[in-house]
Amino acid sequence: MSAYSDLSAHFARISAVSNALGILHWDNAAMMPKGAAATRADSMATLAVLRHDMTTDPRVADMLDAAGGDDGLGDWERANLREIGRVFAIETAVPADLVAASSKAVSACEMRWRQAREDSDFVGLLPFLSEVLALQREMGRAKGERLGLDPYDALLNDYEPGGRSAAIDALFDDLADFLPGFVDEALAAQARRPADPPLEGPFPVETQRSLGLRFMAALGYDFERGRLDVSTHPFCGGADNDVRITTRYDEADFTTALMGVLHETGHALYEQGRPQGHMSQPVGQARGMSVHESQSLLIEMQACRSPEFIAFAGPIMREAFGGDGPAWTPEALWRRYTRVERGFIRVDADEATYPAHVILRYRLEKAMIAGDLALADLPGAWNDGMGELLGVTPPNDRLGCLQDIHWPSGGWGYFPTYTLGAMTAAQLFDAAKRADPDILPAIGRGDFAPLVAWLRANVHGQGCLYETDDLLTRATGRALDAGVFKAHLKRRYLEEA
Amino acid sequence: MSAYSDLSAHFARISAVSNALGILHWDNAAMMPKGAAATRADSMATLAVLRHDMTTDPRVADMLDAAGGDDGLGDWERANLREIGRVFAIETAVPADLVAASSKAVSACEMRWRQAREDSDFVGLLPFLSEVLALQREMGRAKGERLGLDPYDALLNDYEPGGRSAAIDALFDDLADFLPGFVDEALAAQARRPADPPLEGPFPVETQRSLGLRFMAALGYDFERGRLDVSTHPFCGGADNDVRITTRYDEADFTTALMGVLHETGHALYEQGRPQGHMSQPVGQARGMSVHESQSLLIEMQACRSPEFIAFAGPIMREAFGGDGPAWTPEALWRRYTRVERGFIRVDADEATYPAHVILRYRLEKAMIAGDLALADLPGAWNDGMGELLGVTPPNDRLGCLQDIHWPSGGWGYFPTYTLGAMTAAQLFDAAKRADPDILPAIGRGDFAPLVAWLRANVHGQGCLYETDDLLTRATGRALDAGVFKAHLKRRYLEEA
Repeated sequence: MSAYSDLSAHFARISAVSNALGILHWDNAAMMPKGAAATRADSMATLAVLRHDMTTDPRVADMLDAAGGDDGLGDWERANLREIGRVFAIETAVPADLVAASSKAVSACEMRWRQAREDSDFVGLLPFLSEVLALQREMGRAKGERLGLDPYDALLNDYEPGGRSAAIDALFDDLADFLPGFVDEALAAQARRPADPPLEGPFPVETQRSLGLRFMAALGYDFERGRLDVSTHPFCGGADNDVRITTRYDEADFTTALMGVLHETGHALYEQGRPQGHMSQPVGQARGMSVHESQSLLIEMQACRSPEFIAFAGPIMREAFGGDGPAWTPEALWRRYTRVERGFIRVDADEATYPAHVILRYRLEKAMIAGDLALADLPGAWNDGMGELLGVTPPNDRLGCLQDIHWPSGGWGYFPTYTLGAMTAAQLFDAAKRADPDILPAIGRGDFAPLVAWLRANVHGQGCLYETDDLLTRATGRALDAGVFKAHLKRRYLEEA
Repeated sequence: MSAYSDLSAHFARISAVSNALGILHWDNAAMMPKGAAATRADSMATLAVLRHDMTTDPRVADMLDAAGGDDGLGDWERANLREIGRVFAIETAVPADLVAASSKAVSACEMRWRQAREDSDFVGLLPFLSEVLALQREMGRAKGERLGLDPYDALLNDYEPGGRSAAIDALFDDLADFLPGFVDEALAAQARRPADPPLEGPFPVETQRSLGLRFMAALGYDFERGRLDVSTHPFCGGADNDVRITTRYDEADFTTALMGVLHETGHALYEQGRPQGHMSQPVGQARGMSVHESQSLLIEMQACRSPEFIAFAGPIMREAFGGDGPAWTPEALWRRYTRVERGFIRVDADEATYPAHVILRYRLEKAMIAGDLALADLPGAWNDGMGELLGVTPPNDRLGCLQDIHWPSGGWGYFPTYTLGAMTAAQLFDAAKRADPDILPAIGRGDFAPLVAWLRANVHGQGCLYETDDLLTRATGRALDAGVFKAHLKRRYLEEA
């Protein structure tokens, strides 16, 4: 196994650099003083180049060839070679000058975007975003040529290895047919509910933090291998065995930060549960963005917005904040946590309307990469799509096509993973509950151990041993379809409500 | 200037890696969860190897040659070439297998030392420390051959570029003649002082922290380019324009943490004041460990333990903690902050006895590197030296030769910089006060701007433009001698007391 050992030692060093980058990124968001921005950008860019050089080292190709002939490799080692080959193909597909040009265009566009969004000035952003798009198309072509994919699928593949737009089209079309009518019905059902009084704050940050820590502990988050901090944009990051999450507190409303902590804890459980023996190898990483998002949404949407969990957690919240009155009953809290509203902004959207925001973006970015939609026509196409899918029309581009950083920052192909994640979450939770009927009752007692045990065995501990489709089929008995997700939405918003 | 530009760009990348390492080190001490230790050690070792490979890249020698012929280089650029040459010579002097062997021996010895110190078990540590010493001697020889220095001076040179033991011998002999009699006199003077009642706590951590931040601000510490946090062993670290200090709070005693914050702020002012235009280059770094320690000791010992500063700060402390009674008068606080005591432990020593601890270690490590003292004879030599220099004999090796991590961790040649720093601090503060007679009165008003302006101009902003001796001569009119330091001690502990 000498060639394999050499190769895995090389990728362990690459992982050591990635772990350094993960901590620098976390520090950047959670700790870094403002004046350090330029120094930090230099450090991160330099480490990223070093990592790229290590990953694309021509000796990797030789070691891959040699390791493929090693005797006695097990399933994990074979899968690791497959994943290393995947990384190597992607990283070597794009010429260095194209990477540099894209990185420069993204920096310029991101900076311009902050102002353009504030000013609702799509025309001002257009030349910058055109440049980013042109380079994304070029990168998609370069990667696609290497991988035998069309450009959009090649970009998607960076976030969702093995993902294909043909499959996503089918899933999203199914959902797009369902959603508008469903949202109408959900809003009608909601209108028939009693009106709840507001939760009266303020809610001290320290109490919110303690409550978050308490629920993280209940979920099985390992504080010896992570932390909870504050950042403007909540995320889960850090390094192997050092999985850090952040949130943002609002003294006027505890519900958002608290559910945000549970969401990030879902991501963190995945990262903490990756296979220890392969932690530093490509095969030991999370499977892809849709599976990652499925873990946060399974915890947040499926488990923690369930009536069972709110019945357990509601009294704890009420006691922590000294709450009183009808706004604090478990039923009222559950209604608050499952409120549906048609809005313009994706990040504020609820579980029922969120997929419409994603489907719109997916269709638009796919058309722009294919050249079927000119960037200049984006605002009109956006507003048409919002009308069709959500029944609302943004009054300006700030509340429309300028709201997200993904396109300015070069994240084309990322959007569909949010809703693939929501569907995957529904399908996994359904399978978990069927495999262990105590999972939901245990959650109602604040005990997540049965759920997490199932996730450890079927998702977290599997790393990249299998391709995504295979992972899901092994865990749930079938490939991803929209059925379980639609059934979940109907049950929660039309029946339980 | 193309060769020079290439070379400085290369060293800017090296600096970017060093800055990453600085943040990882800070995080390790201040933020990291326990379970991440192995991951972090891998990341830091990997980045250290990458940095070493970049520094010793054979192209550096070619670029140095070519850049030396560049026309139009200014003083800073010439000095940068000198410093780059210095770094390159040191880093390439030691074969990679010797570096690796030393690093391995140090890891094993450090771990064994923690237990050996607890158990006061010098014999148990002996084989581990022998290995470290043997490799230090070998490294000293390898570096010495390249630099034309004897092994001890070659080790010293890592911490104190240009430092020579012949010069240190003369300075330390002078001080060693002076100290025993002086400490007798200081203790006698102290015995004649009134006895002060204790400061009654508890002193809440949040108040201690606020007070530290308040004095940091008064000192001109730039919070846009740094932070104050907590760690077991206080230090100043971080990165360029991201200078972070730590302290450790004790609710029973605020005085130590508060003065510790001021000490680290002295280091931090140096780091924040390095020349912006050369921040990422060897010429833009701090001059060496003695000058660095001089900056912390100048702030802590010279400025902040002065009667002038305590007269200003004492009432602020009293008010912050709601203190009352005779323990809280500025005079009583000043007596507390200038108490002299013969003790066994260096890190607990006061300004007057600290140099004796250092001189002992310096003489012993020099003899061990030269082969004039066998490691097995260290405990006896240690205790003899303590008797001679300090008039006390440690009852065991835990309170004797096992107390410091420096030797187990391979830091041979570091110790003298503490007392060189104390002497340098005295000489610089004396020169500063003569150059600007308002410096001390301003400190009495809590205004450090005149002092810091002088330090910025004469030390911080000079980076490595000059060699240490040259820097000091330019700033103070003469080379380092023990005279000003001795005069300072006599004035403070015999006259003012």
